[in-house]
Amino acid sequence: MKRILIARSAGFCFGVKRAISIANETAGKAGGGADPNRLPIHSLGPLIHNPQAVEELEKKGVHVVESVDDIPCGKVIVRSHGITRRDAEALAGREVQIIDATCPFVKKAQEYARLLSREGYAVAVVGDANHPEVKSIISYIEKGVPVFTSLADFREAAGIRKAGIVAQTTQSFENLMAFVSAAMKRIPEVRVYNTICNATVLRQKESTAVARQTDAMIVLGGYNSANTRRLAEICREHNGRVHHIETARELSPETLAGVSCVGVTAGASTPAWIIDELVERIRSIWREENIQVSYYQ
Amino acid sequence: MKRILIARSAGFCFGVKRAISIANETAGKAGGGADPNRLPIHSLGPLIHNPQAVEELEKKGVHVVESVDDIPCGKVIVRSHGITRRDAEALAGREVQIIDATCPFVKKAQEYARLLSREGYAVAVVGDANHPEVKSIISYIEKGVPVFTSLADFREAAGIRKAGIVAQTTQSFENLMAFVSAAMKRIPEVRVYNTICNATVLRQKESTAVARQTDAMIVLGGYNSANTRRLAEICREHNGRVHHIETARELSPETLAGVSCVGVTAGASTPAWIIDELVERIRSIWREENIQVSYYQ
Repeated sequence: MKRILIARSAGFCFGVKRAISIANETAGKAGGGADPNRLPIHSLGPLIHNPQAVEELEKKGVHVVESVDDIPCGKVIVRSHGITRRDAEALAGREVQIIDATCPFVKKAQEYARLLSREGYAVAVVGDANHPEVKSIISYIEKGVPVFTSLADFREAAGIRKAGIVAQTTQSFENLMAFVSAAMKRIPEVRVYNTICNATVLRQKESTAVARQTDAMIVLGGYNSANTRRLAEICREHNGRVHHIETARELSPETLAGVSCVGVTAGASTPAWIIDELVERIRSIWREENIQVSYYQ
Repeated sequence: MKRILIARSAGFCFGVKRAISIANETAGKAGGGADPNRLPIHSLGPLIHNPQAVEELEKKGVHVVESVDDIPCGKVIVRSHGITRRDAEALAGREVQIIDATCPFVKKAQEYARLLSREGYAVAVVGDANHPEVKSIISYIEKGVPVFTSLADFREAAGIRKAGIVAQTTQSFENLMAFVSAAMKRIPEVRVYNTICNATVLRQKESTAVARQTDAMIVLGGYNSANTRRLAEICREHNGRVHHIETARELSPETLAGVSCVGVTAGASTPAWIIDELVERIRSIWREENIQVSYYQ
């Protein structure tokens, strides 16, 4: 008997589900993409880091733009991983209706960064400095406050008496601890908000367990999704046959050659229908009556 | 040529120097031990953890007592490593003059523990739970606030949203980080005051370097002194012939057999005259004209 073992936490996290549902509701109210008189709906940057899901939204009339200047009127949905304070202020100054789909956990990280900077802490943000989420968190730090985004920055910490630390919600605990350790060596007071979201921790844990128990492992998610790429990396530590793909049609029969038990996981921005399509694709490659599909939790 | 290499930071730290000088001044003002009409001077527990230094103070009229009940009148000097809030309040309720010789760094740790507990943090105190300093720090935590003194305590941390951490001033950085790590794994907000005093860090560092460069190593200090015992342990990691003694007269000639370069360090509560006596004792054992005494910094 062949088996497909799926990590229970694969796919949409709470924040992504919420953003998609807000976007669908907004598009629904506007009457869909077919009505030529409706107000345009924009998202500033992709709503989530999954091209297929963004394409589905585009069909419903949610257009991705890169700059506030591209939104002269209509509605704008603030993407799940947040926008900078500057962009938020620029939007507020326009004749547009703002619909905030920022993940509440990202909002928490923004708020803690702001709080720390207001209470006189230098602020370290653990994450990829180029990621929109990290940029949005940093933008909430008050002007004039020292900001650290790399371990090397702590060498410049002479004279700083108190530092606050927050993390991108999809960071690993190990990265966060490396920052805490570096800060503790140089700064007398260190205040940390562990803003890594539980869904990330759980997904990494379940995916590791699935990778260990299976012959090959499929990781589904946008190539532009940092959390999916990290998931594939983590799985590779436990399974020699890990494939990161965006959609089911990328799965070739060769990938499953000699495999009797295949593992499946997916990043936080991967829609359930992409996971469902993958399961169907595996079934069609295996062409067996007796395939057991189970979930690991 | 024989050599004696002494760690520059060996002996009295700032807090101990200050306590001894306060005690001497108090004894001096009282007219010394010879005057039968003077008011008694007490210290609640030994002023510092060095029997020889405490004996010297006893000769000057500073009597060690174990309980507030043993101090009916006169003056009381609060020891360098602090007393509990309860003892401080009991003293305040008596007809005695209180002279506070608590190390300012210990006072800081007490204040931070109190501040954290008042701001709603559970408080972890990193240190030996039976040490008077740790007892004094804990006593400043507001009633009803959860207190952690061991890593195992964090298993009981379910539901705690914010934890503060302070350390006994003579703790190692590694111990402090182990607590930070344990807290970070379970509690969303962790606020740490690194209250380990710089003198401790420096003394451990210099003593390690001296132990590495010498044939044998003498560590001077009270057998009841936690920081001296820790110093001997650290030196043993780098030198196979480490001797922890309290006074010069304990040094036997056999200890120096075959040694051409001897290292010397001393705990934070070891008086300079004990170090001087050790150097004289080494000279008298070696009986050489040409002995070089140098300091490592």
